[in-house]
Amino acid sequence: MTPSQSLRLVIIAPDLLEGIATDSHARAQAERSRQLRIGLLENGYNIVAVLPADTFLYERLAQLQPDMIIVDAESEARDSLEHVVMATRDARRPIVLFTNDNDTSHVKDAVAAGVSAYIVAGLSPERIRPILDVAMARFEHEQGLRRELADVRIELQDRKIIDRAKSMLMQRQDLTEKAAYDKLRKAAMDKGLRLGEVAQRMLDAADLLG
Amino acid sequence: MTPSQSLRLVIIAPDLLEGIATDSHARAQAERSRQLRIGLLENGYNIVAVLPADTFLYERLAQLQPDMIIVDAESEARDSLEHVVMATRDARRPIVLFTNDNDTSHVKDAVAAGVSAYIVAGLSPERIRPILDVAMARFEHEQGLRRELADVRIELQDRKIIDRAKSMLMQRQDLTEKAAYDKLRKAAMDKGLRLGEVAQRMLDAADLLG
Repeated sequence: MTPSQSLRLVIIAPDLLEGIATDSHARAQAERSRQLRIGLLENGYNIVAVLPADTFLYERLAQLQPDMIIVDAESEARDSLEHVVMATRDARRPIVLFTNDNDTSHVKDAVAAGVSAYIVAGLSPERIRPILDVAMARFEHEQGLRRELADVRIELQDRKIIDRAKSMLMQRQDLTEKAAYDKLRKAAMDKGLRLGEVAQRMLDAADLLG
Repeated sequence: MTPSQSLRLVIIAPDLLEGIATDSHARAQAERSRQLRIGLLENGYNIVAVLPADTFLYERLAQLQPDMIIVDAESEARDSLEHVVMATRDARRPIVLFTNDNDTSHVKDAVAAGVSAYIVAGLSPERIRPILDVAMARFEHEQGLRRELADVRIELQDRKIIDRAKSMLMQRQDLTEKAAYDKLRKAAMDKGLRLGEVAQRMLDAADLLG
C-alpha cells in the first residue's frame, strides 16, 4: 500500500455556496462538508479538486487521475454515485461515500457498483485515516480478484478459439491434432503474438475467405 | 439482503471478567465491549454466543451457523483474526472487526483474509446498523466474485481435461476429433455426469491400466 498521506483525492460534492444564507439545512450541510475537508487536510491528504457530479466528470477524472474519490453526499447520494460510477467504469478507482443518509437500502447497489467504503453519519478527524486505509485495502483486494477473473476468462476464451482454429486446420489441411497445433504455435512465434490471437486472426480470415 | 434485524451474530472476544478488579485498562475494555453488545441488542440483532478465539472455534461455528461474526478485539486484533479466519476458511462468513487499535498496518492482510469491515475507534449505537448492512453487502458482493472465479476455473479445468481425454481417444482408437468427442459425450449422458468428470475418470483409468 502506498502511504496514505500522499494520496491525491478528488471530492465530489454539490455546490454548497448557493443558498447558504437562506437555508439552515444547507448551512448545516455546508458545515459538515467543511469539517470533512478540514479532516482530510489535517490528515495530510492532498485534495486536488472538488467537482460536481455532472457529465463532465469522466473527462476531469481522466485528466486528474486521482488515487481515490471521496463522494460527499447528503440525501442525493444515489444520484451522485450514479455519475461517479459511470465516470469510473473504464478506470476503476477506490470510492468512499460519506453520507448522512441513514437509509442503507441502496447500499447493496452501491457496493456492487464499486464503492469501497460507505460511511454513514458524522465522523471525527481521527477516524478518517483508518477509513481511507481500509477503503484502499478493500479496493486493491477486489481489483486483485477482478484481475484474476479477467485472466482466467481470457485463458478460457483463448482455449476455445485455439480449439476451433485447430479443428479447422485439421479438417481443411488434413493434419493430425499435433501438426495443427504446431502450425499455430509456429505462426504465433513468428509474429510475436499470443496463440489465441493467431487463432482468432485465422478464424477471422477464414470467415472472410469463405 | 435479509433484514439485518434478524441476523444471528457470534461475538468473538477475550474473557474480560478476569482482572477487571485489578486493572483499569481491562476495566475500560470491558466497558467498551459491554457498550458494543448493548448497541447490537438495541439494534435488534440476535447474539447467539460469545466465544473466545481458541482452537474450538471451528467446531462451535459449525454448530451455531451464525450469519455474521463480530470480532471485538483490543490490541490482540491480529491474533483473534488469525483464529477466526482459520475457523471460517471452509465456510466463509461476513466478519466485522471492532478494534481500538489505531495501527492499520495489518489492515491489508485482514481484508485479504476475508474481513468485510474493519472499524477503528468507538462507535455510537446509531452507527451499528449501517456498518453491519454495509459489511453484509460487501461480503455478498465478494462471494459473488469468488463464485464467478470458481465457475470459470472449473470450466477451464474441465476443458483441459476433456481435451486430454479426447486426444487419448483419438490416438488409441484412431478416431476423428468429432468421434472422440461424441464418445465422451455419450458416456457422460449415460452416466449422468459432467463431461469433465467422465474425461477425468477416463484419464484416471488409463493411468491405472498403463
